[in-house]
Amino acid sequence: MAWNTNLRWRLPVICLLLQVALVVLFGVFVRYDLDADAHWIEERMSRNISSDLDNEFYYRYPSFQDVHVMIFVGFGFLMTFLQRYGYSAVGFNFLLAAFGIQWALLMQGWFHSFDGRYILLGVENLINADFCVGSVCVAFGAVLGKVSPVQLLIMTLFQVTLFSVNEFILLSLLEVKDAGGSMTIHTFGAYFGLTVTWILYRPNLYQSKDRPSSVYHSDLFAMIGTLFLWMYWPSFNSAVSNHGDAQHRAVINTYCSLAACVLTAVALSSVLHKKGKLDMPFLESRLRIQDTCGIHNLHGMPGIIGGIVGAVTAASANTELYGQEGLAFAFGFGSSTLSWNASTQGKFQAAGLFVSLAMALVGGIIVGVILKLPFWGQAADENCFEDAIYWEFHQVHLPGLEQGPRSCLLSLQMPKDQKSIVFHSEDPTLKPSEP
Amino acid sequence: MAWNTNLRWRLPVICLLLQVALVVLFGVFVRYDLDADAHWIEERMSRNISSDLDNEFYYRYPSFQDVHVMIFVGFGFLMTFLQRYGYSAVGFNFLLAAFGIQWALLMQGWFHSFDGRYILLGVENLINADFCVGSVCVAFGAVLGKVSPVQLLIMTLFQVTLFSVNEFILLSLLEVKDAGGSMTIHTFGAYFGLTVTWILYRPNLYQSKDRPSSVYHSDLFAMIGTLFLWMYWPSFNSAVSNHGDAQHRAVINTYCSLAACVLTAVALSSVLHKKGKLDMPFLESRLRIQDTCGIHNLHGMPGIIGGIVGAVTAASANTELYGQEGLAFAFGFGSSTLSWNASTQGKFQAAGLFVSLAMALVGGIIVGVILKLPFWGQAADENCFEDAIYWEFHQVHLPGLEQGPRSCLLSLQMPKDQKSIVFHSEDPTLKPSEP
Amino acid sequence: MAWNTNLRWRLPVICLLLQVALVVLFGVFVRYDLDADAHWIEERMSRNISSDLDNEFYYRYPSFQDVHVMIFVGFGFLMTFLQRYGYSAVGFNFLLAAFGIQWALLMQGWFHSFDGRYILLGVENLINADFCVGSVCVAFGAVLGKVSPVQLLIMTLFQVTLFSVNEFILLSLLEVKDAGGSMTIHTFGAYFGLTVTWILYRPNLYQSKDRPSSVYHSDLFAMIGTLFLWMYWPSFNSAVSNHGDAQHRAVINTYCSLAACVLTAVALSSVLHKKGKLDMPFLESRLRIQDTCGIHNLHGMPGIIGGIVGAVTAASANTELYGQEGLAFAFGFGSSTLSWNASTQGKFQAAGLFVSLAMALVGGIIVGVILKLPFWGQAADENCFEDAIYWEFHQVHLPGLEQGPRSCLLSLQMPKDQKSIVFHSEDPTLKPSEP
Repeated sequence: MAWNTNLRWRLPVICLLLQVALVVLFGVFVRYDLDADAHWIEERMSRNISSDLDNEFYYRYPSFQDVHVMIFVGFGFLMTFLQRYGYSAVGFNFLLAAFGIQWALLMQGWFHSFDGRYILLGVENLINADFCVGSVCVAFGAVLGKVSPVQLLIMTLFQVTLFSVNEFILLSLLEVKDAGGSMTIHTFGAYFGLTVTWILYRPNLYQSKDRPSSVYHSDLFAMIGTLFLWMYWPSFNSAVSNHGDAQHRAVINTYCSLAACVLTAVALSSVLHKKGKLDMPFLESRLRIQDTCGIHNLHGMPGIIGGIVGAVTAASANTELYGQEGLAFAFGFGSSTLSWNASTQGKFQAAGLFVSLAMALVGGIIVGVILKLPFWGQAADENCFEDAIYWEFHQVHLPGLEQGPRSCLLSLQMPKDQKSIVFHSEDPTLKPSEP
Repeated sequence: MAWNTNLRWRLPVICLLLQVALVVLFGVFVRYDLDADAHWIEERMSRNISSDLDNEFYYRYPSFQDVHVMIFVGFGFLMTFLQRYGYSAVGFNFLLAAFGIQWALLMQGWFHSFDGRYILLGVENLINADFCVGSVCVAFGAVLGKVSPVQLLIMTLFQVTLFSVNEFILLSLLEVKDAGGSMTIHTFGAYFGLTVTWILYRPNLYQSKDRPSSVYHSDLFAMIGTLFLWMYWPSFNSAVSNHGDAQHRAVINTYCSLAACVLTAVALSSVLHKKGKLDMPFLESRLRIQDTCGIHNLHGMPGIIGGIVGAVTAASANTELYGQEGLAFAFGFGSSTLSWNASTQGKFQAAGLFVSLAMALVGGIIVGVILKLPFWGQAADENCFEDAIYWEFHQVHLPGLEQGPRSCLLSLQMPKDQKSIVFHSEDPTLKPSEP
Repeated sequence: MAWNTNLRWRLPVICLLLQVALVVLFGVFVRYDLDADAHWIEERMSRNISSDLDNEFYYRYPSFQDVHVMIFVGFGFLMTFLQRYGYSAVGFNFLLAAFGIQWALLMQGWFHSFDGRYILLGVENLINADFCVGSVCVAFGAVLGKVSPVQLLIMTLFQVTLFSVNEFILLSLLEVKDAGGSMTIHTFGAYFGLTVTWILYRPNLYQSKDRPSSVYHSDLFAMIGTLFLWMYWPSFNSAVSNHGDAQHRAVINTYCSLAACVLTAVALSSVLHKKGKLDMPFLESRLRIQDTCGIHNLHGMPGIIGGIVGAVTAASANTELYGQEGLAFAFGFGSSTLSWNASTQGKFQAAGLFVSLAMALVGGIIVGVILKLPFWGQAADENCFEDAIYWEFHQVHLPGLEQGPRSCLLSLQMPKDQKSIVFHSEDPTLKPSEP
């Protein structure tokens, strides 16, 4: 089958259509919330707040910027491990996230920050939009190298919508606690992405002689992504926690857990290699559904484990651990909803996990079928995992060198006609000896 | 003409002279401001401030560190896209910024933080010094690859001085509001740099067969710079805004605008390519004045647009949007200067834009003429865009390989004599088979 | 001598043993401190704290994340300058730091945060654990390329223990002030590492024809590490300072000093090169003890200078500079310990420096002798500075190409059989012309 990967009209048109729609919707629906509005100075006086610092901004801003770095540098560079797919990893992640956060501000806004007429935005909305897009970045990992930017924009449009519905069901209807996003972000994002890549299965993908692989420097770039994700995870898990001790506790827990995971991952990586060598990225999927980044191991299983552990620990929350006030504050036990207790909370947490999985599977099937349509600019099997399909390379112009798109990466690094660029090193002014 | 690019005495002498002068001036003029001084504990008691948190430090510090990253990693790596100019991009940016922030602390200090005897420093001064240097980094983009580090230090000395004068005229005399630095940083920096590169025009620059171009990994490094600039821009625009709602609002506005720009830039990049491919960096200048980084499109035009939009929106500020208190707080309307209103503010904003352009053009001409003098260690046309002129490379020593400075980059990546470094992989201890 | 570098059982076993021990010790000993505990809401009421912001979390969190980046990205990438040792630099740094912070939380906890039954953790403990590991990262720089990950874990185990003892002697017994860690981190870390590498001296190391050297891109990766260390140093030096003016002052001092150092370093680098060229990394050790990263110049000497300057300035602290309250707050002068004055403080500071040096030398000898045992998986002299010993490379499979471990880095970048991957660029769908 002949695929047409020339996106000259499809990509600009969809980008501009989406952006114009977003601008109009923002104009109609979006305003500042109380803490961000110029009337805040009056509000402060009326509420007798003594300090400028008691603005939500100062509780959340440092965590927000860390989360922002995770989404754009963390996820973007994490996926640069493929040899000839670095531009697409970083660039497409940038594109889908930039679209996704705008759409998420609207979708999450209608569900959670709508005053009947306007969506009221503050710094917490920005963090939640980044979180929502985080689940799209997870799903991107499953289809990495096999889809066009047009397909990614469509996937983002649907996934952000479904994420927001799922989040509303979990947080507002089931009153689930999901601090680090085990269910809403990781479980939903991973199984949505896995379902999509399963629907998009390409039976002949890995029969071509050029399998996806990493090169030395591409793995170092991927380490930049890995480390920024790892380092800022305490911010991710604490960014929208309750003020004070809850944020503090989320950071301590994440810091210690992440450190423990490194030793465990190194141990597993070494013991699974016949000569005891280490391998990066550490986790590789054994599933036969073309999960490029191995997101099943990286987000899917951990998300489910997180969801189960969350249900168990919520079910065992008690006054000794939290205090009477603490329990009321953290879970709302013993206050308005008198019948609400730790056991109920645990059951609803478990229900939230199943809802997330169901949404991911059903949504993933629908979106996968849409993306399977043949006119979205996707590449042929032989051209997957290849930047040159969608990106212009600036070539060094050297005489007498036959070049083709696939070799351009190599030719850029290695001009063949060495003679034409050799200089004599003795001349301090470095003029060419052969002008 | 024979150029001497050996900087052995010129560069150390200018660096040490400048640094010694700075140390002396700091000793004579610089002290801590109230919030940073060890007497703050007494001040706190006398002003009845209840919490340690009510120190300017906690309002500004997270934004400061983000801005600091933008200046050194953001601008530094943004300019690594040239194939053989990565060290110079990062290293010279580091050098000029390190000098510039010290000189800016003094210049801006005399204008804005001088108590008659001492310049009093606090965290806001550090941010403003970074901002000032940001405008030098913008101008560096225009002359990238064509000037020596000595020329860059001289340009920085003058540009920081002119920036501070311009900033004083705008902010203190014209009472202009310039939150994100549209006028003081972007417009001034861009047109100053463009004027300098216009004066330094090299008619034969691009006739050499080796044009400046990017390689695969150099563009990935440039993406690190691009992303850190993009991600931290909300901090840049809010770092010195008024406490509370104003900082909050600047962040929300920047976050949303930047996301919208990504979709628009992708659309334009794709539609302007005959096969619809994407290109990084997105913007390229069409001006014939050798603007290496395309700063006219990246900072010049956006700065002017920002200045105009700022004038228009200031002219339409009203009580409904801001509230009575908010207007007084944000613009000083209706308080001390009774005749001051939105319309006046708008006119003064427009005046500020013209002053910035005039300062940039006149200053740029003067500095350009000074930099055109032939003894600053600049490179010949054929050696522009080339790290090896100013940087030592550590070469792999391989037998039978003729090397020159220009080929050393290549030779380091590609030892030719493969045989001498091939080992047999079967031995787990990896001892060489040919000792 | 034949070395066995297959770590398949040794590395997993030591990782898992350490991690299991840590988990058990955490379970037995570690709890949240007051500001991080769910009972904080009750504590707040009883102590009449009006705002959620008055939680230690908000004073320390932004600095904590910056320090965290310095340890993992800063130190990790700083050491990627070696041509074929990037994975090990980043990966082993990641491993030792992840183990080290957990062990440091316990060791420092027993000394400083123990309530008789439990270690109580808050954000300040996380920062101090990162600091402690910083001294291990410094020592890692001295032995870089010559030790196995098993040796690094053992070194970390001992060094963290010794660091904590030394820190307890200095801060608690001698009441030394050591804000930026001149003595506890830099002096101790550097001379500990130098002693270890002196004991591990390999007489034939540099006689092999492949000396450790950098390549173009490896130095750009190292610049990422260098810049993140440089930019976030103000956070490092202020992270655990007293609230308010002390944190503020530490930031201003560090910002200005670091900027001044850049100009001085550039001047020295240029004047020491016969053609005035610049060299990165700037500092190189002249010691004949195989100090790979030159940590004697980078941390050892500066640490000693910092220690001496600290003693001198503490001895000259007076009421004019600090105020009565300020002196009492910063040093405890004139309060409980009436006989305690600036001169005493200065003497104790000097004593702290000697204690740190003694601990480093004695501890370094003991640890060096342990690491010299032949069964820790260390590499033979010819295989030092080589990633392929401990890391799996994903090779591009190309026909007719003899490959060995040492050449794989090169072969990955440069498939020789160009013909097999050349495509015709005219077809927009980029299908291979030779299927």
